[in-house]
Amino acid sequence: MSAATRSQVRVRYAETDQMGITYHGVYFVWFEVGRVEYIRERGVTYRDLEEKEDLRLPVIDVQARFLKPSFYDDLLEIHTRLAEVTGVRIGFEHEVFREGTPGPLATGRTVVAAVDRQGRPRRLGEELRRRLES
Amino acid sequence: MSAATRSQVRVRYAETDQMGITYHGVYFVWFEVGRVEYIRERGVTYRDLEEKEDLRLPVIDVQARFLKPSFYDDLLEIHTRLAEVTGVRIGFEHEVFREGTPGPLATGRTVVAAVDRQGRPRRLGEELRRRLES
Amino acid sequence: MSAATRSQVRVRYAETDQMGITYHGVYFVWFEVGRVEYIRERGVTYRDLEEKEDLRLPVIDVQARFLKPSFYDDLLEIHTRLAEVTGVRIGFEHEVFREGTPGPLATGRTVVAAVDRQGRPRRLGEELRRRLES
Amino acid sequence: MSAATRSQVRVRYAETDQMGITYHGVYFVWFEVGRVEYIRERGVTYRDLEEKEDLRLPVIDVQARFLKPSFYDDLLEIHTRLAEVTGVRIGFEHEVFREGTPGPLATGRTVVAAVDRQGRPRRLGEELRRRLES
Repeated sequence: MSAATRSQVRVRYAETDQMGITYHGVYFVWFEVGRVEYIRERGVTYRDLEEKEDLRLPVIDVQARFLKPSFYDDLLEIHTRLAEVTGVRIGFEHEVFREGTPGPLATGRTVVAAVDRQGRPRRLGEELRRRLES
Repeated sequence: MSAATRSQVRVRYAETDQMGITYHGVYFVWFEVGRVEYIRERGVTYRDLEEKEDLRLPVIDVQARFLKPSFYDDLLEIHTRLAEVTGVRIGFEHEVFREGTPGPLATGRTVVAAVDRQGRPRRLGEELRRRLES
Repeated sequence: MSAATRSQVRVRYAETDQMGITYHGVYFVWFEVGRVEYIRERGVTYRDLEEKEDLRLPVIDVQARFLKPSFYDDLLEIHTRLAEVTGVRIGFEHEVFREGTPGPLATGRTVVAAVDRQGRPRRLGEELRRRLES
Repeated sequence: MSAATRSQVRVRYAETDQMGITYHGVYFVWFEVGRVEYIRERGVTYRDLEEKEDLRLPVIDVQARFLKPSFYDDLLEIHTRLAEVTGVRIGFEHEVFREGTPGPLATGRTVVAAVDRQGRPRRLGEELRRRLES
């Protein structure tokens, strides 16, 4: 498995719900922040993949486990790892940490498919795959 | 001023914040639900305007006043009226009501501009303007 | 397995992303709309469970598979079924349909835990469990 | 007028819409990120105001003007200034900038009211007012 990319997010007021914790759906937005940074750290930007290579990476499968709540204004660290990359899809693993709290607050897994602008399957180039695995 | 279109929304858990009320930013999403229904009631859909007429209506100006909070699971009624329509922009007025509570919970005003896919100004057709004013 | 509850949602502009489809994170909000209606159809409201019985049902596990995209202004039907209920947790199954499209656009599964206001585990009452299973 | 606090945000994929720009409702979330940082820079945290001083600052009035669109992955700078503070409310001014683009992409103004947990009006303490004005 590749090295983890670490991204920081601070919980926004809009991201809390009346239970006084972060709404669970927000973690998927953070997972995506992590994926974008994972790719950027390897010398590519998802923005360029879309604009210059006509690649889209829609999420086709996702799961998450919420172990401990996070709270408004918490500074969190999202760890993102590559789980697998094939010619047509990429799997990522996610963990959310808060300094001072042992173990992850949440874990997750996302699979994205490679398609073009019209949603037709596309193959991921060799160079991109090598970069993602690095 | 034209007749008001009435749209119903129920406050979702995701739309609350830890103050135990609806997050204020959510009202702009509801205002948009109201605008979309306003247009649909007049025989056009915003979806068709985008897809068939290459029209986009980005928001360029918005204001809102929050008078009383709304709460999780409240069934609300969004009233949407046309404030003005010119060749290049449309103004809408919004009010949010909850049955049993006198007066609006929130009021607002939105101005959208008419542009094409590339964001260049476009003129609104006469027929669309007449429909909006009806 | 219990009968499915059917809830309608219309895709909001705010819920789309620049891929031109519904952002995947939005489905978790719709799943919740489905759970809330599932409970309401069985004579209880989640709001009352919170306010009158000091019960909270935070999501602890969720998964979703996205098979076909949904689009702006689509009218969707969320089917929600009970998967299991124990003394301390409830599992739900979700399917999202669009009229005219065969098969679900998305499927999912959510597990919520029963806790009190302070986040301490609580047991679900017999009557509530019976209602959920009905 | 006090000095501006500068906060950075990067546009998330979830924050775009199918027009290919940031959804306008997202700016209100960013304005709030700016307010929170404005307060933090002056030695207080909004979190502490809520938890330790039983203060809530719900938004009662907001307006925004959208001059130029922002795009996915843009790194933006939110400038937040105090417009006014009285015993019972605080006004903030917002501007959103992107490096390399002259002038703000968006401007706005928010007024928040001081209330307690039950939503009853509260007076802002002298020290807090002095800090906010510094």
